[in-house]
Amino acid sequence: MAFDTIETPEARKEKLVGGSCTYCALAASFFTRPKIVAVVGEDFPEEAIELFRKRDIDLQGLKVSSGKTFHWEGRYGDDPNQRSTVKLEMNVFENFRPELPSAYKDTDILFLANIDPELQEDILRQVKNKKIVAMDTIDTWIKNKKPAFLRVLRKVDMFFANEEEARLLTEEINLIKAGKKILSMGPSFVILKKGEHGALAFGKDFVFGILPYPCEGVVDPTGAGDSFAGGFLGYLDKVNRVDMKEIRNAGVFGSVMASFALEDFGIHRLASLSESIIQRRILDYKKFTSF
Amino acid sequence: MAFDTIETPEARKEKLVGGSCTYCALAASFFTRPKIVAVVGEDFPEEAIELFRKRDIDLQGLKVSSGKTFHWEGRYGDDPNQRSTVKLEMNVFENFRPELPSAYKDTDILFLANIDPELQEDILRQVKNKKIVAMDTIDTWIKNKKPAFLRVLRKVDMFFANEEEARLLTEEINLIKAGKKILSMGPSFVILKKGEHGALAFGKDFVFGILPYPCEGVVDPTGAGDSFAGGFLGYLDKVNRVDMKEIRNAGVFGSVMASFALEDFGIHRLASLSESIIQRRILDYKKFTSF
Repeated sequence: MAFDTIETPEARKEKLVGGSCTYCALAASFFTRPKIVAVVGEDFPEEAIELFRKRDIDLQGLKVSSGKTFHWEGRYGDDPNQRSTVKLEMNVFENFRPELPSAYKDTDILFLANIDPELQEDILRQVKNKKIVAMDTIDTWIKNKKPAFLRVLRKVDMFFANEEEARLLTEEINLIKAGKKILSMGPSFVILKKGEHGALAFGKDFVFGILPYPCEGVVDPTGAGDSFAGGFLGYLDKVNRVDMKEIRNAGVFGSVMASFALEDFGIHRLASLSESIIQRRILDYKKFTSF
Repeated sequence: MAFDTIETPEARKEKLVGGSCTYCALAASFFTRPKIVAVVGEDFPEEAIELFRKRDIDLQGLKVSSGKTFHWEGRYGDDPNQRSTVKLEMNVFENFRPELPSAYKDTDILFLANIDPELQEDILRQVKNKKIVAMDTIDTWIKNKKPAFLRVLRKVDMFFANEEEARLLTEEINLIKAGKKILSMGPSFVILKKGEHGALAFGKDFVFGILPYPCEGVVDPTGAGDSFAGGFLGYLDKVNRVDMKEIRNAGVFGSVMASFALEDFGIHRLASLSESIIQRRILDYKKFTSF
């Protein structure tokens, strides 16, 4: 969980509530009851906590530490896909060691969001019964903690990566080759996120192409990838089945949840959604893609 | 029609038969009987002419001028989407004034490939009866011949453009907005080609998203966009109907024909296709996109 300070050509927004966990849990909360593990500082706003409670997100694993909340500052260019990091303040995240409440130790789907792979391993050890483990990462760990990263990758069922990470990991420019290569490194399903160009989902015997929902009003792409993962995994938890058919549907729900995230700054749009708005967009998505 | 000298990180190929007309006509020839208007020099190989004849392409409009064939030399980076022009020799194309044989003056679909918009206007005047006029262009004409370009755009039914051209024309970064804006400039249908990311087709009351077929073996992307247009328009001519449903299907056929074009250097792969190979890939495409 984080504060995001975001600058676009149109506006600057200071310390919006954000972070991978926030976006992912909010998006998933429309399909299931997510349990989160995260740390914030004493400066984290009570209203955000209230919002998570209202969305029925389990907060037993949310730790409030003395100090300040992790803070990222980024800037987007005229093209909302050009993003640069301006500042990064680790704060209470610096020494965070995720600890799972005992009520979390049985879980159907465990999502290891981007964090040091040694900590991801540690979390894996804490969970007793789990059906599906999904992981995300970032180029830093593939570069600097490769052995630990590869160990985790071998143990998970599902791997989310963006284009750059997939290419870095496999040394393949072609994403179809890259996705298939990652399947041979452990996971049964690989989801490659291509930002504004959608995503690809790979299984042992299929590839599924996921178009991005056609958004006219892209305001702030922060959190779209995490909202994709939240919609994807939330949907799978709801239907309680992971096979080719449901992976495809999950991709569509992920794409739709991502499209909401980028229509406003921070979690604004996600927080104001309803199931009927989501269903309507799923129908629009079908019209957009069917032939 | 052109000679293309192409360099990729793997190979260099001198003077391959290429050009917009070649790719487009070959791709369309699997659906209809294209009639071409083009110029080549005396150095153009007889085998290529033979191939066009074998594919039942009407060559009455092919002019052989004394001199050399247009010659483009380009280089692709490790990422096949990075292309740079190394050399451009206009040769017989320099003073080309397209003249339509009388047998061409009634036509169902007229495709004005990329050429000076004043020449596109001139061709339009030569055709008596036509159902559908489609056009392509390039940034040069939008920048340097805007009034003529806009006049042609107002007269056509269908406009093909790539991302950069659409953004240049509309000053919109968002492609959904850009596509809709171009609809207000004349054409009933706008097809925005996004290279390796697929395409978008716009009509008055719909947007259709077209995924690229998942190719593992991208050898040479030259001509993929023209093959897309050839498959798209060839299909429409075959079904002899232009509505939302068939525009969507045309997008799929266009995408599939483009995928063949880039699997080998030059027209190699396109020339060796059969209808059953195309149909098989259409089925694979359905599997790739359906949910």
